[in-house]
Amino acid sequence: MKQLDELKQQVFRANLDLVAHGLVLFTWGNVSAIDREKKLVVIKPSGVSYNNMKAEDMVVVDMDGNRVGGNYKPSSDTATHLELYKAFPDIGGVVHTHSTYATAWAQAGCDIPNIGTTHADYFSDAIPCTRDMTEEEVRSAYERETGSVIIERFKGLDPLHIPGVLVKNHGPFSWGKDADEAVYNAVVMEQVAKMAFISLQVNPQLTMNRLLIEKHFSRKHGPDAYYGQK
Amino acid sequence: MKQLDELKQQVFRANLDLVAHGLVLFTWGNVSAIDREKKLVVIKPSGVSYNNMKAEDMVVVDMDGNRVGGNYKPSSDTATHLELYKAFPDIGGVVHTHSTYATAWAQAGCDIPNIGTTHADYFSDAIPCTRDMTEEEVRSAYERETGSVIIERFKGLDPLHIPGVLVKNHGPFSWGKDADEAVYNAVVMEQVAKMAFISLQVNPQLTMNRLLIEKHFSRKHGPDAYYGQK
Amino acid sequence: MKQLDELKQQVFRANLDLVAHGLVLFTWGNVSAIDREKKLVVIKPSGVSYNNMKAEDMVVVDMDGNRVGGNYKPSSDTATHLELYKAFPDIGGVVHTHSTYATAWAQAGCDIPNIGTTHADYFSDAIPCTRDMTEEEVRSAYERETGSVIIERFKGLDPLHIPGVLVKNHGPFSWGKDADEAVYNAVVMEQVAKMAFISLQVNPQLTMNRLLIEKHFSRKHGPDAYYGQK
Amino acid sequence: MKQLDELKQQVFRANLDLVAHGLVLFTWGNVSAIDREKKLVVIKPSGVSYNNMKAEDMVVVDMDGNRVGGNYKPSSDTATHLELYKAFPDIGGVVHTHSTYATAWAQAGCDIPNIGTTHADYFSDAIPCTRDMTEEEVRSAYERETGSVIIERFKGLDPLHIPGVLVKNHGPFSWGKDADEAVYNAVVMEQVAKMAFISLQVNPQLTMNRLLIEKHFSRKHGPDAYYGQK
Repeated sequence: MKQLDELKQQVFRANLDLVAHGLVLFTWGNVSAIDREKKLVVIKPSGVSYNNMKAEDMVVVDMDGNRVGGNYKPSSDTATHLELYKAFPDIGGVVHTHSTYATAWAQAGCDIPNIGTTHADYFSDAIPCTRDMTEEEVRSAYERETGSVIIERFKGLDPLHIPGVLVKNHGPFSWGKDADEAVYNAVVMEQVAKMAFISLQVNPQLTMNRLLIEKHFSRKHGPDAYYGQK
Repeated sequence: MKQLDELKQQVFRANLDLVAHGLVLFTWGNVSAIDREKKLVVIKPSGVSYNNMKAEDMVVVDMDGNRVGGNYKPSSDTATHLELYKAFPDIGGVVHTHSTYATAWAQAGCDIPNIGTTHADYFSDAIPCTRDMTEEEVRSAYERETGSVIIERFKGLDPLHIPGVLVKNHGPFSWGKDADEAVYNAVVMEQVAKMAFISLQVNPQLTMNRLLIEKHFSRKHGPDAYYGQK
Repeated sequence: MKQLDELKQQVFRANLDLVAHGLVLFTWGNVSAIDREKKLVVIKPSGVSYNNMKAEDMVVVDMDGNRVGGNYKPSSDTATHLELYKAFPDIGGVVHTHSTYATAWAQAGCDIPNIGTTHADYFSDAIPCTRDMTEEEVRSAYERETGSVIIERFKGLDPLHIPGVLVKNHGPFSWGKDADEAVYNAVVMEQVAKMAFISLQVNPQLTMNRLLIEKHFSRKHGPDAYYGQK
Repeated sequence: MKQLDELKQQVFRANLDLVAHGLVLFTWGNVSAIDREKKLVVIKPSGVSYNNMKAEDMVVVDMDGNRVGGNYKPSSDTATHLELYKAFPDIGGVVHTHSTYATAWAQAGCDIPNIGTTHADYFSDAIPCTRDMTEEEVRSAYERETGSVIIERFKGLDPLHIPGVLVKNHGPFSWGKDADEAVYNAVVMEQVAKMAFISLQVNPQLTMNRLLIEKHFSRKHGPDAYYGQK
């Protein structure tokens, strides 16, 4: 249980970090993290204000979404988080926000093109946007199916090299090895979404050398990374 | 009278919330709330700075706009608020601002299309924009007629499902069950106005599944709502 | 002299208000005010940081630009201010900034169209942009000639009804009955410039009822004004 | 060594100024300064958070990039800084950021046109954007080659009159006589990038009198400068 308490603290602080980074208005965002050994996920409670929230308000659910700890209902997006944890075994934290620019790209239904080293430092390719959901998917287990269309979109893509996605007409999800990295990637997505929007207005014919993308991604990731302090 | 004092406090705090949310420059915004039993409306005084304003400065008017309490003249938009309270019997608070993005859409004379779940969570359809006012309407009781064109625009629309409007070349009005909810909806309108602007620049051909709109609206509203804590 | 000390205080505080409203980066802005009786103008010193500036650092110049008080050189834009005071006898304060959106419109070389009541509340028509300056004008007394092209642009326009201008490829100047009102109008210009930019992107075919413009301007100005407290 | 301690303090404070001016997210920026006599460069450590950074964490490198002081690895962009110091003998400080608007122009692959006096006050011409790097350049000593393409772009340009550049698909570099001036120019670049973006949306046909550019640049630079206090 002690480990879960630490995870609650992490998830709690990561949720507040979303607010500090200006990614969240009202209650429109949530962070979760998984304990892979216990097969339990800690997530923000649904619709609870960030101002009054405490670490012990975080909700614990099992992999089927059953609440096994905490006094509140979990985030309404919990089923989406769970699908991502099941499909992407190497991720430890998931974030969902309605951050302004990333959400605007999701509403536009467009991938965010990889046209700069800021983007390439963290994403090895475009940030993909999912397809329209079918009537069936919306009417049935909507939040779980939201997870399914994300996973479908990642066929052939490596979720560790592209740690985020736009859900069409909805907004961004991001992930990482833990809650903090998932928040970090949410901030990156918002910033590259903003810069790509401006770039596109300045010059609709955007191009970037594929090699430069690979160079920057590998400066920060993989065996030959040389950015930062060892 | 005690109840009215509480209403004055609510309206006062709601006016300050507009400022805290960055929706108001100088004195360009006002909040009111109604006491349906007493048939009295409490509203911000006209042109008074938010810095020095106190709860007791709120003005009380009857349904004809006659001041029945307070030392100041009521907001110059009072007649518009009153028309809305008369036409929409289930609302308890009204907000008017010149918030940047919502006002820009009003100046563009365009409905804000419902192209994302952020929008659909609170508005079941586009945020409508009113028609041009006639010479007659502008020359006569202008502020009351501003209310009339809003009400005309809502023929066939449910003001509880679409809790806001753009007045062409002017700016947004929003409402809710009380002053706080009206402010909340004003914040939502500004944010969806901003995101729709960006989306439109990224992709002029915006589309959204109608079913997804209904799904999101019903997650937060109506008998089957399941967002938030019970 | 006592009156001049008060004017220095006003000009000093008005300069700081520019910063507080986010209109000024580094030293890129200046406010002046005139004592019509003494025929003296008080203005910000050139290139002095707002952080260390004191009221007594304000510079006093006569109508020919000769320094008659203060230890610093006056703003390099002083000659432009003086031209405006000479040509517009009813103004008491002048402001120049490089505020983001107003400057961007000046760089675009376009009048800001009057397409909303926010604009019409303070400006009875478009905010005009000056013509290109000639080689002669730039090479000779450049700052004085900057004033001349503004005055030329106002042939047939009432500077009290249109209390601001864009100098092409440069930025906005605004004025008012005193330094505070000039600052107020600078804030209005920046905000309407921002909103007009967004409106134009949403809908390139902007229209506004001329009658509505007149209505709003007269709500706040002239004998029949009824906005604010008496 | 005392002089180097002062330089470390300057570089440390200049790095924090980048953050204060809103040009840096996370660790995405770096400032360096050179001691021309000792032929040593002081630069920010790689990937270290600004929150915990101290003056003594600054890294000292020789002109070949060998660390000769400090406990951390230098910024991964160090080789680019060194190339600039070698090619531009009169500069004393270099800044690199991923500031939003300047980076967006770099991603667009476009020079920022000189269309306003804000720009002309500090840059005597457009802010140039470099060409695409070749496979060879990216694969070999990438950061050094980044410096080479900048230097190539400045053939025929005076780096003291154009104290900044956009590296295509990457972001801005700026410089000055010391670290503070390099930071100042980074702020100017971000602001003119933002304003040029807006101007371009308002009017795709931007023009500016060449004479006006020269006039403004010479008001602040060169033998006849008359802006500021002596």
